[in-house]
Amino acid sequence: MMQVYLDNSATTKPSEAAVEAMLKSMREDYYNPSALYAPAMRSEQILKDAAAAVAAVVGSDAKHVVFTSGGTESDNLAIFGHMQMNRDGGDILYSAAEHAAVRLACEEAAARYGCRALEIPLTSEGQLDLVALESLLSEKTRMICVMQVCNETGVIMPIQEICQLRSRICPKAAIHVDGVQGFLRVPFSMKQCPVDSYAISAHKFHGPKGVGALVWRDGFRFKPMMIGGGQQNDRRSGTENTVGIAGMGAAIKAYPKDGSSKMLALKKTLVENLQAVLPEMKVLGLPVDDDHSAPHILNVAFPPVRAETLLHALEMDGIIVGTGSACSSKKGKHSHVLTAMAQQPAVMESAIRISLCPENTKEEILYTADKIIHQVEMLRRYVRR
Amino acid sequence: MMQVYLDNSATTKPSEAAVEAMLKSMREDYYNPSALYAPAMRSEQILKDAAAAVAAVVGSDAKHVVFTSGGTESDNLAIFGHMQMNRDGGDILYSAAEHAAVRLACEEAAARYGCRALEIPLTSEGQLDLVALESLLSEKTRMICVMQVCNETGVIMPIQEICQLRSRICPKAAIHVDGVQGFLRVPFSMKQCPVDSYAISAHKFHGPKGVGALVWRDGFRFKPMMIGGGQQNDRRSGTENTVGIAGMGAAIKAYPKDGSSKMLALKKTLVENLQAVLPEMKVLGLPVDDDHSAPHILNVAFPPVRAETLLHALEMDGIIVGTGSACSSKKGKHSHVLTAMAQQPAVMESAIRISLCPENTKEEILYTADKIIHQVEMLRRYVRR
Repeated sequence: MMQVYLDNSATTKPSEAAVEAMLKSMREDYYNPSALYAPAMRSEQILKDAAAAVAAVVGSDAKHVVFTSGGTESDNLAIFGHMQMNRDGGDILYSAAEHAAVRLACEEAAARYGCRALEIPLTSEGQLDLVALESLLSEKTRMICVMQVCNETGVIMPIQEICQLRSRICPKAAIHVDGVQGFLRVPFSMKQCPVDSYAISAHKFHGPKGVGALVWRDGFRFKPMMIGGGQQNDRRSGTENTVGIAGMGAAIKAYPKDGSSKMLALKKTLVENLQAVLPEMKVLGLPVDDDHSAPHILNVAFPPVRAETLLHALEMDGIIVGTGSACSSKKGKHSHVLTAMAQQPAVMESAIRISLCPENTKEEILYTADKIIHQVEMLRRYVRR
Repeated sequence: MMQVYLDNSATTKPSEAAVEAMLKSMREDYYNPSALYAPAMRSEQILKDAAAAVAAVVGSDAKHVVFTSGGTESDNLAIFGHMQMNRDGGDILYSAAEHAAVRLACEEAAARYGCRALEIPLTSEGQLDLVALESLLSEKTRMICVMQVCNETGVIMPIQEICQLRSRICPKAAIHVDGVQGFLRVPFSMKQCPVDSYAISAHKFHGPKGVGALVWRDGFRFKPMMIGGGQQNDRRSGTENTVGIAGMGAAIKAYPKDGSSKMLALKKTLVENLQAVLPEMKVLGLPVDDDHSAPHILNVAFPPVRAETLLHALEMDGIIVGTGSACSSKKGKHSHVLTAMAQQPAVMESAIRISLCPENTKEEILYTADKIIHQVEMLRRYVRR
């Protein structure tokens, strides 16, 4: 039976390039990068190379990269780090699509530092409501948090427009972008979009788990979250995870240049094949050919078939897909993103997320379309009986 | 030329068992442990097995283990996590030997939460001054932070006695132990020593960098430092680093049972050989045969030979040793530990740290003793000229 992994937005399989770099780092360059002897300089070089690789993707500079333990730490670091320096009762805004690592950090920042956390609503297609954002912005705005790509719907947020609104209404406010689902898959330049900080997580792009980074713009001020030995210029203490960082750097370099166009073609094929037989399929998010639809994430619902039932049925066919975000999947709650999009409960309970990687093949996608059609038709009969 | 790595307290080479476990986790069990499909349960099982392995070493329970990104995060989590729930102006105490991840976190906790941070002095041999501690303890004491083994001197701290003083004077105060240099190398049981939290870091015992844990006692209350997806029962959000955690679990299981006795024998041989020819050698810390001297760390000085000069000379002989702690080695300051031990500047500037692992051999140690003697005799002549 064919085995098809289509939950790449939950996590990806590390690329062999990443694995090899990690092996080398563990077997040869395991030295502490803070040590004084010559071999330790090789470990330090790993850090420099990876920082340069991260920075190059988003048009930044290696000296503006701090390595973290992943996306959650990167998001928390930007939000707590910046907001603890802004205790004047201002506002922190976040889109209703934000991951819990941003949403809950904004709420916690409000409780800790006396700011006010405000949610920016979404349209029914999952896009950020720019009109609503404009009405929320004021000279009291201290920080705006928005994800580059929504992990649940694949909607690409209008960051350029947000930067323009910021310039006009609250030029001193910081913009933090959670780039966890966008980095390498959707082009982004901190030169074109002058956001203040940008978070990434290696295991979302075929690097290892347990490592990520925060990239910042010159002038962005944030206090460290971890305190101790003063590594990384005091921005993040703790012996650097050279193993994971080596893997992240290698994963970036190995990421195929044509990955996004390949994934988009596969996504289009999948949608076309499904829609041809199951016209009642509901796409949650923007249409597949919209400029603001990411190439690798597709959220679809086949009510009244329940997502969990379909997920397990597809698993029997060797196909792995997700429901909402992995983090919240065990909690059995309605997705906060789909709720913000004002979807019906039956739709939310039916939504599955199919997320691609550049290694997926057309054969896998055709097989998946066939199996989804087969299972949905079967399960629908069962539900209606 | 023989290559001898004797800076194992800075970091260790990952064991092949750890590397193999990480490879398997990356190639086969890369799934997100929060996902709902069956293969993800294997990733979840990695977490459970590793938690059980950590807990077994210190007589705790797997459900009282939270995985972190390393020792710094574990120490910070215990201190910030607990002290933010104790904002009543009480005291947090830390030994003068503590690593910066503890010392600076205590000072930051004082600034953030309005407590008072007090340092517990050391004796000239680097042992915690229990009489001074007793005079610092009071009903205002909220937390006592002490390391199991000093990373610079190898002194084993009197944790049992600290627990007894706590019971007598301030039974509600928490005790946090930084076990980063002790775990697996010096026996410790949270059943015998009822401390509240215990921090470990995998890369100090042949696991990978970027992963550690905090073990706590039932009833210890602490707030999370990282907020988001709610992983690890909300104690530490962020996709679990299953790769690193698999490596840490395997490193624990592969750690040789006779590692400590083997290292102690090597340490004794080294000291005897050096003392026989260089009787003016100064051991910083307790004598090698003292019960409170750890088997794997030796801090020695050969004034007026400067540590950095000796370190680089030995590097030419293929021998790698450290100076103080790796984290502070680049800052060129006097060690805060040796300063607290009231050592002379010439001694502090001469101190090198030799730290062993169970894989070191008698041949390596004899070679090292020979080379140290040779280099010290050479360099001494040069200094005196």
